[in-house]
Amino acid sequence: MIELPISYQEIQKAHELISPYIHKTPILTSESVNEIAGCELYFKCENFQKIGAFKARGGVNAVMSLPEAQRQNGVVTHSSGNHAQAIALAAKMAGVPAYIVMPKTAPEVKKKAVAGYGAQITFCEPTQQSREENATRIQEETGATFISPYNDYSVITGQATCAKELLAEQQDLDIVIAPVGGGGLLAGTALTCHYTQPKIEVYAGEPEGAQDTYLSMQKGEITKVEKPSSIADGLLASMGDKNFGIIKHLVKDILVVTDEEIVEAMRLIWERMKIIIEPSCAVPVAALLKYKAPFQGKKVGVILTGGNVDLAKLPF
Amino acid sequence: MIELPISYQEIQKAHELISPYIHKTPILTSESVNEIAGCELYFKCENFQKIGAFKARGGVNAVMSLPEAQRQNGVVTHSSGNHAQAIALAAKMAGVPAYIVMPKTAPEVKKKAVAGYGAQITFCEPTQQSREENATRIQEETGATFISPYNDYSVITGQATCAKELLAEQQDLDIVIAPVGGGGLLAGTALTCHYTQPKIEVYAGEPEGAQDTYLSMQKGEITKVEKPSSIADGLLASMGDKNFGIIKHLVKDILVVTDEEIVEAMRLIWERMKIIIEPSCAVPVAALLKYKAPFQGKKVGVILTGGNVDLAKLPF
Repeated sequence: MIELPISYQEIQKAHELISPYIHKTPILTSESVNEIAGCELYFKCENFQKIGAFKARGGVNAVMSLPEAQRQNGVVTHSSGNHAQAIALAAKMAGVPAYIVMPKTAPEVKKKAVAGYGAQITFCEPTQQSREENATRIQEETGATFISPYNDYSVITGQATCAKELLAEQQDLDIVIAPVGGGGLLAGTALTCHYTQPKIEVYAGEPEGAQDTYLSMQKGEITKVEKPSSIADGLLASMGDKNFGIIKHLVKDILVVTDEEIVEAMRLIWERMKIIIEPSCAVPVAALLKYKAPFQGKKVGVILTGGNVDLAKLPF
Repeated sequence: MIELPISYQEIQKAHELISPYIHKTPILTSESVNEIAGCELYFKCENFQKIGAFKARGGVNAVMSLPEAQRQNGVVTHSSGNHAQAIALAAKMAGVPAYIVMPKTAPEVKKKAVAGYGAQITFCEPTQQSREENATRIQEETGATFISPYNDYSVITGQATCAKELLAEQQDLDIVIAPVGGGGLLAGTALTCHYTQPKIEVYAGEPEGAQDTYLSMQKGEITKVEKPSSIADGLLASMGDKNFGIIKHLVKDILVVTDEEIVEAMRLIWERMKIIIEPSCAVPVAALLKYKAPFQGKKVGVILTGGNVDLAKLPF
């Protein structure tokens, strides 16, 4: 018997807590993509989520589930991407301060989005050390609570609500596939499937240039990749230990894809489905198009994680 | 009392006829676009329609409503765009031949899409004369029925089903806005509103470089524009007399926008809603963002007509 750190009751509670603040995103299908993939795909469109990505779920749950007194001191995180926006949005909704440490090299559009939610931004050097030092200093100065982008049980529990909605609306899935970076979404997805429909096999797609989860699963222990690099810039984070404790028990396989395969899958979804997904979001699509065998003839839920792309820098 | 050439019963019948063959497209909303526009927008997403555009409705209705004996001889049209695909798809579904005259300069991707539906393509010179001569010759040789892209009552009746779905799902609209090119969609939309919710005001957006509908409405008679030109390449056709007979009675106003405003609106929808729309489709969005007054605080249905763009040639 595996001991899991998050119960289904906690996922249900998180879903009730965050539902007033997030979108129940639609599930879309495409006959022409099904034909190409050789299976029936059900796309859970978190690219239509608030802030344009599933991260709103974990961010809102982490902030809203803090005890009232603690929450009043605000929240702090370091991120250059969707998590920064998620925490800024959640703090705005909760009416508490958000302190976001962003590398000064972050794209202007992301700096503006975070500032637009009223967060206080501290710019740092683009290194892990500078990020962490700044976040720690702000924690000490303000009493704000640090919220990790993925290695945090309240974040994982929030991300688990995405698969909960998918499985409630589409009840006969054989497989669910998501991308994996730090592992918060994958761990949450695997937990929901395990508790509600344990026959579902959970897969993840991972970029070749950041395949630490693949290696970690092979070795049975967290194995880092030196200087991860991929067009899927949302998936460069290393697997968190809290997430890996869940993933190693509940995930069937990690499927590795190249940047070229990611761009091809992204283009396919844009052209056939007329929806905008970011490179990180195309990774599970690339995986199921590449490793066809396990998916043939199956009903497959695909979590489309986000749609935040810089239209001036498209890869096609 | 105005005499209208299409009854509501005919629109209902068309909807029953085509429903098994087309998608009931979703209606999407966006808080952030509402905030920018200063009104409540309900986007009817025909960019998710079969062939990626509303033209599937008119095409399927025109082909499926032909008498059986006549239909067996096939259908013919000339088009370089979405109407060619719509007729090819409808003929494939009906199991009859489709003869499509396309200018040899048409984009490869569109030629491939039409060929993919099994249509027989005849390439012609890129002139109206060559298009018409070829279509007439094929009609004479094959006995196929010519189907105009817009100046045809069965096509107008098919396009009217789009607003019918919109109004059935969202019952308290004050305004509906669509783009106008040849006028098939606008005439159909105005008919549906007139018959089911006559208090709704119907507006259209039109590109400045092809503003023949605007001029026609001013003069009260069809007024052509020499060499129409716009990034909204689906709206270059001249107003048809059948459509104008409906539009002049039932449409409140035509709002003219520049190509720059069209691109800006297109980008806004891509970035905020994460959906792909083509320039022609962005025209009503550009119009309501430019001419704010009539829309302020109102509930506005916007027909998003299509999402067929060449990703290698984006205007941003």
